[in-house]
Amino acid sequence: MPRTLRFYFDFSSPYGYLATARIDDLAQRHDCKVDWRAHLLGVAMKATGQKPLLNQPLRGAYAQHDLNRMARDFGLPLVQPDVFPIHSVAASRAFYALKDDEDGQSDFLARQLFHAYWGEGRDISRPDDIAREAAAIGMDGEALIQRMALPETRQRLREEVDDAMERGIFGSPMFDIDGELFWGCDKFDQMDRWLAAGGW
Amino acid sequence: MPRTLRFYFDFSSPYGYLATARIDDLAQRHDCKVDWRAHLLGVAMKATGQKPLLNQPLRGAYAQHDLNRMARDFGLPLVQPDVFPIHSVAASRAFYALKDDEDGQSDFLARQLFHAYWGEGRDISRPDDIAREAAAIGMDGEALIQRMALPETRQRLREEVDDAMERGIFGSPMFDIDGELFWGCDKFDQMDRWLAAGGW
Repeated sequence: MPRTLRFYFDFSSPYGYLATARIDDLAQRHDCKVDWRAHLLGVAMKATGQKPLLNQPLRGAYAQHDLNRMARDFGLPLVQPDVFPIHSVAASRAFYALKDDEDGQSDFLARQLFHAYWGEGRDISRPDDIAREAAAIGMDGEALIQRMALPETRQRLREEVDDAMERGIFGSPMFDIDGELFWGCDKFDQMDRWLAAGGW
Repeated sequence: MPRTLRFYFDFSSPYGYLATARIDDLAQRHDCKVDWRAHLLGVAMKATGQKPLLNQPLRGAYAQHDLNRMARDFGLPLVQPDVFPIHSVAASRAFYALKDDEDGQSDFLARQLFHAYWGEGRDISRPDDIAREAAAIGMDGEALIQRMALPETRQRLREEVDDAMERGIFGSPMFDIDGELFWGCDKFDQMDRWLAAGGW
């Protein structure tokens, strides 16, 4: 059975978006399965006492520069969306509505939502936005809106966020390899060594 | 003329200490000269509004685990000093007292101070501590204490910290390659690519 690499992200996080450029390559190199998990950084930031990085003095300016440099390094388009920051609750509900479907539909939608927001600057905060992006990749957008609104979908997101918090997930991206956490896009090279060596 | 790689660190920062394991290898691979610069994170944290990472909920526990994992990865001993955190003003004054001496004496002292504190857990916050560590590597500890107390040494540290803040240095380690800033021990692999490619 292949190992599982849990990939935690928040749809409003540009570093989470950039991680999508390298996660599959890492997993394939080490015969891992990627388990995508949407998280809500707003909940995590209440626990850690942090404010959004891009709004912090000095650190925000550095992060903006680092993001652009990393996007070129990783080969992904990156724009500054007109609507920022956004609430990622609707996108995360849509993701978990599809999470147990076959064929990685939730991950397929997640890539489209990330691309729409961070690659092309389209708002993805409202259910209609989600339906539009779902339709763009051949899904039934109206059906998805209905599934997003179901009590069990809303409950699923709450449970996933609670579980992530219990695991100590406070950032985007964060990766969980058999309980070993790695934080940030800068960890890809170390994770590659970790998986190759079987830990150290 | 070789390129200069500015290496900013705070003596109280374990990640700054760990960076000393890889900085020379990176520089040698790309024919760079390393310019060590002590910084005071306390000043930077006033500007950024941050508290010490190791004291932050969730993030602190992650960082402690990450530090131990990284120390094993980088091949450096790492202990939890009994006295923590410490003020790094005295150590930084000692560093700048020697900065313009020949033969890299300041960097030699910096390595000893980092090793004493993070590798073996000895306090390095008081002038007598600095003198003890200087003597351990064959320097005149009493003479160093006298140089640390000189008005020009104190002024030098103030100017260096002001200059670092103007450059946007808020973390330890941070690296400045021709004005391009990189933050964190996790940046070594990206800096290696950056220097090999001549930027991107």
